[in-house]
Amino acid sequence: MRSKSNLAAPLKIFGIAGSLRKGSFNRALLNAAIDVAPKGVAIRVFDRLAEIPPFNADVEAAGDPEPVAALKSAIRGADALLIASPEYNYGIPGVLKNAIDWASRPPDSSVLKNKPAAIMGATPGMTGTARAQLALRQAFLFTQTFAILQPEVLVARAQEKIDPEGRLKDEATRGFIRQLLESLVDWTLQLRRETGRREAA
Amino acid sequence: MRSKSNLAAPLKIFGIAGSLRKGSFNRALLNAAIDVAPKGVAIRVFDRLAEIPPFNADVEAAGDPEPVAALKSAIRGADALLIASPEYNYGIPGVLKNAIDWASRPPDSSVLKNKPAAIMGATPGMTGTARAQLALRQAFLFTQTFAILQPEVLVARAQEKIDPEGRLKDEATRGFIRQLLESLVDWTLQLRRETGRREAA
Amino acid sequence: MRSKSNLAAPLKIFGIAGSLRKGSFNRALLNAAIDVAPKGVAIRVFDRLAEIPPFNADVEAAGDPEPVAALKSAIRGADALLIASPEYNYGIPGVLKNAIDWASRPPDSSVLKNKPAAIMGATPGMTGTARAQLALRQAFLFTQTFAILQPEVLVARAQEKIDPEGRLKDEATRGFIRQLLESLVDWTLQLRRETGRREAA
Amino acid sequence: MRSKSNLAAPLKIFGIAGSLRKGSFNRALLNAAIDVAPKGVAIRVFDRLAEIPPFNADVEAAGDPEPVAALKSAIRGADALLIASPEYNYGIPGVLKNAIDWASRPPDSSVLKNKPAAIMGATPGMTGTARAQLALRQAFLFTQTFAILQPEVLVARAQEKIDPEGRLKDEATRGFIRQLLESLVDWTLQLRRETGRREAA
Repeated sequence: MRSKSNLAAPLKIFGIAGSLRKGSFNRALLNAAIDVAPKGVAIRVFDRLAEIPPFNADVEAAGDPEPVAALKSAIRGADALLIASPEYNYGIPGVLKNAIDWASRPPDSSVLKNKPAAIMGATPGMTGTARAQLALRQAFLFTQTFAILQPEVLVARAQEKIDPEGRLKDEATRGFIRQLLESLVDWTLQLRRETGRREAA
Repeated sequence: MRSKSNLAAPLKIFGIAGSLRKGSFNRALLNAAIDVAPKGVAIRVFDRLAEIPPFNADVEAAGDPEPVAALKSAIRGADALLIASPEYNYGIPGVLKNAIDWASRPPDSSVLKNKPAAIMGATPGMTGTARAQLALRQAFLFTQTFAILQPEVLVARAQEKIDPEGRLKDEATRGFIRQLLESLVDWTLQLRRETGRREAA
Repeated sequence: MRSKSNLAAPLKIFGIAGSLRKGSFNRALLNAAIDVAPKGVAIRVFDRLAEIPPFNADVEAAGDPEPVAALKSAIRGADALLIASPEYNYGIPGVLKNAIDWASRPPDSSVLKNKPAAIMGATPGMTGTARAQLALRQAFLFTQTFAILQPEVLVARAQEKIDPEGRLKDEATRGFIRQLLESLVDWTLQLRRETGRREAA
Repeated sequence: MRSKSNLAAPLKIFGIAGSLRKGSFNRALLNAAIDVAPKGVAIRVFDRLAEIPPFNADVEAAGDPEPVAALKSAIRGADALLIASPEYNYGIPGVLKNAIDWASRPPDSSVLKNKPAAIMGATPGMTGTARAQLALRQAFLFTQTFAILQPEVLVARAQEKIDPEGRLKDEATRGFIRQLLESLVDWTLQLRRETGRREAA
């Protein structure tokens, strides 16, 4: 992998799956990402999405609920994000959007701002979450989250590629995920150098 | 109002505000809709959005949680929907999308399918939720919810038009909401006649 | 076909392919539509898209150029539209959008307003123009063109399904196009009855 | 302006207006950009958009038509792009999209790839091209054009801000355009340093 020589310290990636069900295809994509991650890359997957309460500005004004604080802290501490999401009604699940709504605030100093990110998605259908990924990119435009554009990991007919134990068997897809991670690592290091240069200036 | 002669029975509209905070501008739009509603139109506003749990297909498989069943029942029993939503991160709030995700299932017989709907939105910003309304229309394409297209009710600088008690003072905006309701009534009656004709055939 | 008994007079469908190249996959979809069209349905395909000049409001003010007038006249005279479009840069081709921009004017009495329509698309890629179709639906929201939502005809890996002579060989896809046409016919007749009823009232 | 000290050589910005009419509001925005440009920034505006032929892959295969070659050359030679576009049918004009379709090819080495860009738009309506800008950003995701996200320059009620001679009189808007240019300059220099570093490595 062309990026590894740059990884003096481990690079921390925080993964979020947009689906809550136990046998989630998208959770399976994140598990595969852990398997194929380049050396020096540590991926931690968020397991508290179901605990994030519905966004309410009155609640927020009284202080972030603990699961929200945990989410924000995890994003802040990560070098990059990795989102794996299904497509619901041509968009991302409300559950995932709700977590983004919390994390996006306050806008000027949100943990999503300038954060490198990568997107992938799996679906039983034919289009592999193409529309949901576009909807997520739209949200990330607003939050100024730097989501990489290539490669696109659109996993169609996921039930043929993921076994009942949630293991992604399809080698081509595993390769795409590996490429996505390499691209995310390069992107993250590039932004980190830029930031370092700025802070040194 | 040109539609009133058709209203033999009251027309039931079910309203949902996409924001949960007490002083919600969008809840204020729904209150204004109740004020200006044409004769024979009854608007009921959903007050349990905060209770809708995060969508989880495993939970769904065990039976809809009670608030979800209540939501679906209210939509099923209504002649039309009226959505008032803020814009979060260029989209609709995750909270609202999550409710739609539940209501959209099962896809072939969802309570959203063929349901007439109208959309409006208020925001402190300049664009009046233009992008959120488009995102909502995108979801409604998938669910085959028949959302009317005109007039567009985009309420910008909402804080100047809604007083601290949540009353929409702006007469122009009240007029737009009235027009939106009249258009929704016409549309609903048109679809109802078509359905009646079909069932009689 | 369930609709045929309603077709006292032939139903005229006007087809537009979004790609100009001779071997266009999307032109092949329209040719297939002609092959599989239900009895009583006549499909005419626009062959002057390349002649539509770039939209310019100054030019429009001086009178529609002849190819634009021909386009508008063909749309006005048709009972329904059938669009077959590739995906360029996550959207529809500028060429097709430009034709829609002309046809959409003037907004209040445009030939696109209330016109039934169906959408399909072919691409060498995996997502079958999913994003372009959504972009086209977004334009049709503005123009109030009534595009049917189901079935979705997303033809991925088109080069494997269309032979060098531009003939769609794939039987499954031909069946989807047939279903799309049947759905478009039903939708068109439903709207026509509604209009007839209105005019009789 | 905080960036000026970095401008050893002039920074070349290539502007494209999405509307062809003589009194175009968006052309007026570009003229205002020329007025308020930071020292060391040279803005050249494309005046041949009307000559770009409709994209046709057969034509492209025979060699780019001269106006297309000129467009690509101008983009290649520029340090950054500045797009000013109206909103047509919830999207960008087909005319502008068509130019992007040409410029986006071939995808792997297109002149749009990695090119810094800024977006603004003017409209007589209330939403200031919010939806068109989002549609343009969607295209720029595909082309991997690096469009800056802030500030958003959404010019609503343009007829009140631009005089009959096409001069933008509104001082607030002129200030936003100045900010947009400063942000674009910073972004361009940041990417240039990164590229320089890479080439030196």
